[in-house]
Amino acid sequence: MKSGSSFLLAARRCEIAELEQLAHTAELVGVTARFVHALQRERGICNVYLSSHGARFADLRAQQMAECEQVEGQVREHFERLDTEAHRMRNGSRLFSRVAVVLHGLDGLPELRARIAEQALGPRESTAAFVKLVAGLLAVVFEAADSATDPEVTRALVALFNFMQGKEFAGQERAHGAGVFASGASDAAGQQQWRHLVDSQQGCFQVFTEFADPETLRARDASTEPEVLAQLERLRRIGCSPHGAPLDPDLSQGWYEVCTRRIDAMRTVEDLQALRLRHLCERRIVQARAELRDQRAMLEALAAQARESGTKAPAALGPLLERSVLAMLQEQSRRLQAMGDELDAVRTALKERKVVERAKGLLMAHRNLREDEAYKALRQMAMNQNRRLVDVAEAVLSLADVLPGGR
Amino acid sequence: MKSGSSFLLAARRCEIAELEQLAHTAELVGVTARFVHALQRERGICNVYLSSHGARFADLRAQQMAECEQVEGQVREHFERLDTEAHRMRNGSRLFSRVAVVLHGLDGLPELRARIAEQALGPRESTAAFVKLVAGLLAVVFEAADSATDPEVTRALVALFNFMQGKEFAGQERAHGAGVFASGASDAAGQQQWRHLVDSQQGCFQVFTEFADPETLRARDASTEPEVLAQLERLRRIGCSPHGAPLDPDLSQGWYEVCTRRIDAMRTVEDLQALRLRHLCERRIVQARAELRDQRAMLEALAAQARESGTKAPAALGPLLERSVLAMLQEQSRRLQAMGDELDAVRTALKERKVVERAKGLLMAHRNLREDEAYKALRQMAMNQNRRLVDVAEAVLSLADVLPGGR
Repeated sequence: MKSGSSFLLAARRCEIAELEQLAHTAELVGVTARFVHALQRERGICNVYLSSHGARFADLRAQQMAECEQVEGQVREHFERLDTEAHRMRNGSRLFSRVAVVLHGLDGLPELRARIAEQALGPRESTAAFVKLVAGLLAVVFEAADSATDPEVTRALVALFNFMQGKEFAGQERAHGAGVFASGASDAAGQQQWRHLVDSQQGCFQVFTEFADPETLRARDASTEPEVLAQLERLRRIGCSPHGAPLDPDLSQGWYEVCTRRIDAMRTVEDLQALRLRHLCERRIVQARAELRDQRAMLEALAAQARESGTKAPAALGPLLERSVLAMLQEQSRRLQAMGDELDAVRTALKERKVVERAKGLLMAHRNLREDEAYKALRQMAMNQNRRLVDVAEAVLSLADVLPGGR
Repeated sequence: MKSGSSFLLAARRCEIAELEQLAHTAELVGVTARFVHALQRERGICNVYLSSHGARFADLRAQQMAECEQVEGQVREHFERLDTEAHRMRNGSRLFSRVAVVLHGLDGLPELRARIAEQALGPRESTAAFVKLVAGLLAVVFEAADSATDPEVTRALVALFNFMQGKEFAGQERAHGAGVFASGASDAAGQQQWRHLVDSQQGCFQVFTEFADPETLRARDASTEPEVLAQLERLRRIGCSPHGAPLDPDLSQGWYEVCTRRIDAMRTVEDLQALRLRHLCERRIVQARAELRDQRAMLEALAAQARESGTKAPAALGPLLERSVLAMLQEQSRRLQAMGDELDAVRTALKERKVVERAKGLLMAHRNLREDEAYKALRQMAMNQNRRLVDVAEAVLSLADVLPGGR
């Protein structure tokens, strides 16, 4: 029969097993970040290629597709590895469901590319397809953050997820702005969407700032070039000028380049975060293993002392030894409780997105909308009412009971 | 390389694995409920034995100890089985930590019993030791409820945990009232604690009523004998009479018996709940397996159709097939999302206890109190301020930052 001490050690072994699983997840997240970046570039290049009716970026596109395919292979390999340990995955069902959506999207990529090559679709349609794929990959990172059980690792994952999401909004802003400048005119609807993309970025980077570690924040600050930012703000101001003056289409190129410099700088920060995340997991595993060793040694020493003093039953260990074991038990309970509390606190940062996802699901079910349409409807409501997306989402959810056919 | 469809199935397999684990946990919870009941009886018998200086219940005690030992063996067996699947346990570290505390307490049980036999301790001290052991076992059930991933199963576990906790308060009330009647007098402090035990029971049974299924509620109602309740309320009224009149010590026996009839009736409801919980797990497993089978068959049919139509790449399945797979993916995502939402909602019912536990931990750390002292301090504050325990706990936590030496 196992003793209390052996369960004390088993609890620690569970923690280690969870950390090891997290380490795999961290690797997957790192590769996913690289793939998202590659797809963002391909999206931008396709945009120019299609807008110029194939006149520009044909070579660059071929080059970028090759890079995408290479990273896609790595992502698929990591997915493959996930599957082999399917049954022990924490939150496995939700993560796998997200992976299924991504793989379905990836399977459609060759056809999408063929249609782009033939210019059988417009830049808007092409962009939408890439946006959807990237959203699927971000959902995988989100589930990884939501299922991690170590508060420090969760914190790092929440920071990284928000950074990636902010960078994606920055990428969408690049495409949107390029389109507006190229068209030579800026209308109210376009400006509203532009502001929405800027606000969304800010929201994400705010959460990132709250959860990132100091070194990552310093790296982010160091990577930010003041002249790039100044240029970005100047072009945003011109593009969003309410006076309705015609825009110089030549600004499109400059806008694209300044955005790209900014996004590429973000990529280095993202890479650093992924690296630090892996190191963090490794460090936590080493630490937990050392603690397990210490605990085991201490329990063995206590048992030896008990044997020497001629007793056997743990209950007869004597008050001093008894207290040592009890103190270890209490310390462990307290530590796990504190970890659980901290985890709850960090996870609330993920709540906003969940609320938006739920509201989207509600609209899809009730109005029979597609996912992108539901999101657009929410965003439109938020822009019209000048409220935050999450507030509108909450308002929608509060109406759930009065909507026809609600659950 | 695996396809999206295979991850769709992997997600389902994960769900099944989690349900299978839940089924084991449900069995453990059932045996734990039986053990708690046996310990509650032993506690009551020891109380009478010690109060009568060994004159009464010596035989009954021997009989009850034998029953306790038998159920203890079953509980230990279930703990043993937990350990073998250590690494895949969800929330394993916290559950195991609780198990370690329980086993440590069980190891001390023979010595406790020896001291009771020798009448080397008073009824109060003996009761406190049993209360602590029962609290440890209830904590195991709590962790099981907190870590379950199926909303319906979580709902049943939350109901059962609150029922068990309410029954434990009823047991404490039985001991408290018996002591008050036996002493022949009722003072303000004793009455205050009595009222606290009644309120605590009500709180627990309210949550139980909220989460239990209709059949369990019907069984609870059917098991409640009106004359027992009337008798209970009459004796409560006499025992808590504020007029300070002397009490008839002979009422002690009648009080004990009416409480015991009530608690034994609760035991049948508890047993029914444990049984329904096991059946619920089995039903959900059967259901999930059937859904997995259906999904697999559907995907195979789609693949066959694709082969017949002479295409191979999933992207080229044709718009109709494409839409079928996409619909399955979306349906699964939506279902998992809804499950996650429901789970969050059910788990908030467990939040109160967590708040109390955190406040207790804070007091233990800052005032260097033992666990029972910390709980007593919280309860005293609640009684003095005439507030709910959870409100006092929240007030304590809000002071955490200003307390010296806080984390």
